[in-house]
Amino acid sequence: MLTRNQVKAAQERTAELLQGAGIILSEEERANIEVAAFGLDELEIQGLELVTYVNNDRYCAKELALFPGQTCPEHLHPPIGSDPGKMETFRCRAGKVYLYVDGEPSQPIGATIPPGSESCYTVFHEIVLLPGQQYTIPPGTLHWFQAGDEGAVVSEFSSTSRDEHDYFTDPRIQRVAVLAEE
Amino acid sequence: MLTRNQVKAAQERTAELLQGAGIILSEEERANIEVAAFGLDELEIQGLELVTYVNNDRYCAKELALFPGQTCPEHLHPPIGSDPGKMETFRCRAGKVYLYVDGEPSQPIGATIPPGSESCYTVFHEIVLLPGQQYTIPPGTLHWFQAGDEGAVVSEFSSTSRDEHDYFTDPRIQRVAVLAEE
Repeated sequence: MLTRNQVKAAQERTAELLQGAGIILSEEERANIEVAAFGLDELEIQGLELVTYVNNDRYCAKELALFPGQTCPEHLHPPIGSDPGKMETFRCRAGKVYLYVDGEPSQPIGATIPPGSESCYTVFHEIVLLPGQQYTIPPGTLHWFQAGDEGAVVSEFSSTSRDEHDYFTDPRIQRVAVLAEE
Repeated sequence: MLTRNQVKAAQERTAELLQGAGIILSEEERANIEVAAFGLDELEIQGLELVTYVNNDRYCAKELALFPGQTCPEHLHPPIGSDPGKMETFRCRAGKVYLYVDGEPSQPIGATIPPGSESCYTVFHEIVLLPGQQYTIPPGTLHWFQAGDEGAVVSEFSSTSRDEHDYFTDPRIQRVAVLAEE
């Protein structure tokens, strides 16, 4: 679990990353940057920082930020009722992103699988995104992504987000954040 | 009608505006910036420049650029079959945007109605957007918008775009571009 101070420090680093990418946030957005450690205790290695601009019953838009080498763990967005599952387009705004999706495995890959979590990474078809490049992930597709050495900022355009339904390969993962007492 | 040279010049100005807002485009995106003069012969006064990142059957994301004082004419996105009409969120990235939607008229308003087209502007509820501010326009709502003195860059997050179905208050308007012979 993250402490409030850890969350605050991560929010400040994220605000700097976004500012470096020319992205302007309101004071409220800056104060509410989401820091997702996924219930694992290694934010720097496995984690993701998010600003959600809008998420309604038709579409969603977020900025995703990754610290240098930080990995968003492998997951997929399952169908929910008549919704075939979240479809999402990642557009790299700054830094470098190693994105992996289900498909023909690339070899070697540019990312480093988080040590100790090797069994929780199973798809290795690599897409490298630099600023101005984008990729659309179909619904129900396992994927994970990692930032290069300078971190990364990614705009995510998608159908409605229902994060609480996401399936993660790592059974230890909790998507909804829990704060530790200081 | 715009000539190819006019389109090219507008594309170059747009690329500069976007670059100034920290937005990185691919070469292909830069070469294909959409310049919409709406069939009116006054791009500088009534027009809009667009880059569409993605438009699928679930969501759409675009960058909109406006030259200083340029106005996107009044229109709405009607229902189409089971689709209640396009819903869109405008997020200002750079410059200043005067946005007008149906509702209690503001008085005075910050924008200047394009001279000679006064009868084609009928909604005056003003929302001013500065960088980091955003507004969501419900489906079927008449709206128009104008940039301030430095132009503007706006990220648009929305449901699927079907521009060819848009209703414009000005009966002279053609949404689909026609190029003039040089």
